[in-house]
Amino acid sequence: MMEQFEGYMYVDGGVCAARGFQANGLNCGLNSDKNKNDLALVVSDELCNAAAVYTTNKVKGAPILVTKKHLEATGGKAKAVIANSKNANTCNADGEEKARRMAELAAGQLNIAPEEVIVASTGVIGQILPIEPIESHIEELAKGLSYDGNDKATNAIMTTDTVPKQVAVSFDIDGVTCTLGGMAKGSGMIHPNMATTLNFVTTDVAISTQLIQKALSEVTKITYNCLSIDGDTSTNDMVCVMANGLAGNNEITEENEAYEIFKQALYIVMMNMTKMLAKDGEGATKLIECTVSEAKDLDTAIIVAKSVIRSPLFKCAIFGEDANWGRVLCAIGYAEAEFDINKVDVDLASSKGVLPVCRNGAGVEFSEEFAKVVLAEDEILVNISLHDGDVTAKAWGCDLTYDYVKINGDYRS
Amino acid sequence: MMEQFEGYMYVDGGVCAARGFQANGLNCGLNSDKNKNDLALVVSDELCNAAAVYTTNKVKGAPILVTKKHLEATGGKAKAVIANSKNANTCNADGEEKARRMAELAAGQLNIAPEEVIVASTGVIGQILPIEPIESHIEELAKGLSYDGNDKATNAIMTTDTVPKQVAVSFDIDGVTCTLGGMAKGSGMIHPNMATTLNFVTTDVAISTQLIQKALSEVTKITYNCLSIDGDTSTNDMVCVMANGLAGNNEITEENEAYEIFKQALYIVMMNMTKMLAKDGEGATKLIECTVSEAKDLDTAIIVAKSVIRSPLFKCAIFGEDANWGRVLCAIGYAEAEFDINKVDVDLASSKGVLPVCRNGAGVEFSEEFAKVVLAEDEILVNISLHDGDVTAKAWGCDLTYDYVKINGDYRS
Repeated sequence: MMEQFEGYMYVDGGVCAARGFQANGLNCGLNSDKNKNDLALVVSDELCNAAAVYTTNKVKGAPILVTKKHLEATGGKAKAVIANSKNANTCNADGEEKARRMAELAAGQLNIAPEEVIVASTGVIGQILPIEPIESHIEELAKGLSYDGNDKATNAIMTTDTVPKQVAVSFDIDGVTCTLGGMAKGSGMIHPNMATTLNFVTTDVAISTQLIQKALSEVTKITYNCLSIDGDTSTNDMVCVMANGLAGNNEITEENEAYEIFKQALYIVMMNMTKMLAKDGEGATKLIECTVSEAKDLDTAIIVAKSVIRSPLFKCAIFGEDANWGRVLCAIGYAEAEFDINKVDVDLASSKGVLPVCRNGAGVEFSEEFAKVVLAEDEILVNISLHDGDVTAKAWGCDLTYDYVKINGDYRS
Repeated sequence: MMEQFEGYMYVDGGVCAARGFQANGLNCGLNSDKNKNDLALVVSDELCNAAAVYTTNKVKGAPILVTKKHLEATGGKAKAVIANSKNANTCNADGEEKARRMAELAAGQLNIAPEEVIVASTGVIGQILPIEPIESHIEELAKGLSYDGNDKATNAIMTTDTVPKQVAVSFDIDGVTCTLGGMAKGSGMIHPNMATTLNFVTTDVAISTQLIQKALSEVTKITYNCLSIDGDTSTNDMVCVMANGLAGNNEITEENEAYEIFKQALYIVMMNMTKMLAKDGEGATKLIECTVSEAKDLDTAIIVAKSVIRSPLFKCAIFGEDANWGRVLCAIGYAEAEFDINKVDVDLASSKGVLPVCRNGAGVEFSEEFAKVVLAEDEILVNISLHDGDVTAKAWGCDLTYDYVKINGDYRS
């Protein structure tokens, strides 16, 4: 069950949940499985204020470079997103040309400037993107746009994902109902220190580009950037937020109460998508949520939490349902942050109960029988207290399984 | 075949290859498999100059803390090593007491001061070390010491290792034949940024403690610290070098030619053990050696090489014998170093030939058929040129396989 937040209600519709957003998705032939969409279009009825964060990888997919230029050219305005899966359009000599062409194709159908189009690609790196399938299907894609098109678009950005990821919430600002929703794709080459994976968020809130960017950066730090599937920072990661203002609230231009309400909505949607991404990590059977509390500051809490969820040894132990807490201590110990390891407490937990395993940096006795019961669940909590302050942060990951190896030993072909 | 170096000859005997070193190993009952040794003793006929490097993990095994105190107390002198496997004696309230007791037990048998004993443990973290099996077997262990005892000792420090790791070379200094050899254990919880795993090196060279420490730190940086099996930095890592001077050369007390000969011998032994550790990484089927050349400095070359051999996605691709070079580029791209990604060239290679896959940061066409032939070998080379200087460094790792998951999903029990 999803965590509930006062004043926010989960609603259907994902990227089309907010007023004035249409979407569509189809198979244009990049993916040989005709039942799997590979091309998505999301369009707002009105020009949006828009902001994005991008991968920090030095190898940046061509679509990232083009999107960045577009948002700079328009001063943070956008009306549409075009995205494909199966091919990342990265490390190709003609990559930028192809990414620009995708924007032009979408713009031509929508009668807008190419710079108002955000472009994204995900898939195999280093293979030339065939543009013909996109050219020959762009008209059909645009004609099929609808306010119910969220599922088709969400399906189109999936790669090794086993389930689509979408979340939306509604909430009040200035007495008017606002909505914010998004779609995301996983599920490998995912690691903190970036805006992880492709994520598109749409909202009808009226808010300035500058404040979208500020909220997005802050929320990314404590959601997507606290996610690790495999420690590999992708070349094509992007989160973008488009706000068309159709809810009718007074435009948010300062960090007032309305801004906080908006930011919390963004947090709820991005946090839930982060958890969905972790749970559907390549080959994963279990979601791992690590909470570090009583840290002296946010960075320390985040660094420790991320270190634990990244540890391959701990991830394997969770797959094996083995309460091998020494591996948690080991990962805490090599986290690059300052704290006293001799004050650290660790509990493992799930919906079946809480298992204290470590106090003051040393092991405590526990029932192996009860440990098995706790770890048999599919959502495992690791609760760490540093006893060094009052700040809390979470990170999300998944277990490391045979299927992760299987999927990635045979992905390109 | 092992790489050959002019002036150095590989010899048998590992940790007993140098003059005046005896060893023994036996099963004292820590390991329920009676055919697997779990307790080792290495003793020099003469007091040695000794130096060590330790894990940088904040969680330090009790034996690390005790060894450090001992070497400080003696000013860098040691006569013996006692080491056990199966239990890391880490995160236990009585850990230091037990580690001191191990040193006392060995010292009692050898009629030396406990501070002249180096103590090491490896195995499960957070379980109380039973001292009784060690107490009851220490006499037998000491009585069985011999100049041929290397194999028994090497066997005793193995954990999930499938093969023992030992190397020794002989060489000339001042017209006298000197020997330097070592033993090491793998094969999980291994990641750069430390002295990886347990490694014991013995030599009959006469050399000052200060220069042993200097050579050890420099060589560790380009050998063990360039090794990653799984990204987990262990709590119990230690490399120690003991030099008893019995070769009869003039004691090396300055960085002269003799020092360089000694340092090169240390490099050859540690580099070969590093490769053995990588090749026998948990579940590994292939050794991956990544060479980064034409870097502007050593740190850049090392950081890039380590980033590639750590990438789980690339490790899986190598397991699957898939020339998915985009994952190499991706890992180069998120390495935290400065260089121009658009100048990077990448080749994959093995004894079957060289496969150029990337020039100037973009893909080049290659034969998938030939790629399969190259990648079917069990030693895979990744050769990267940054075209930004003249420095080269190597890093070593292994593929990520089903068996890694199997071993680590079920290790404690």
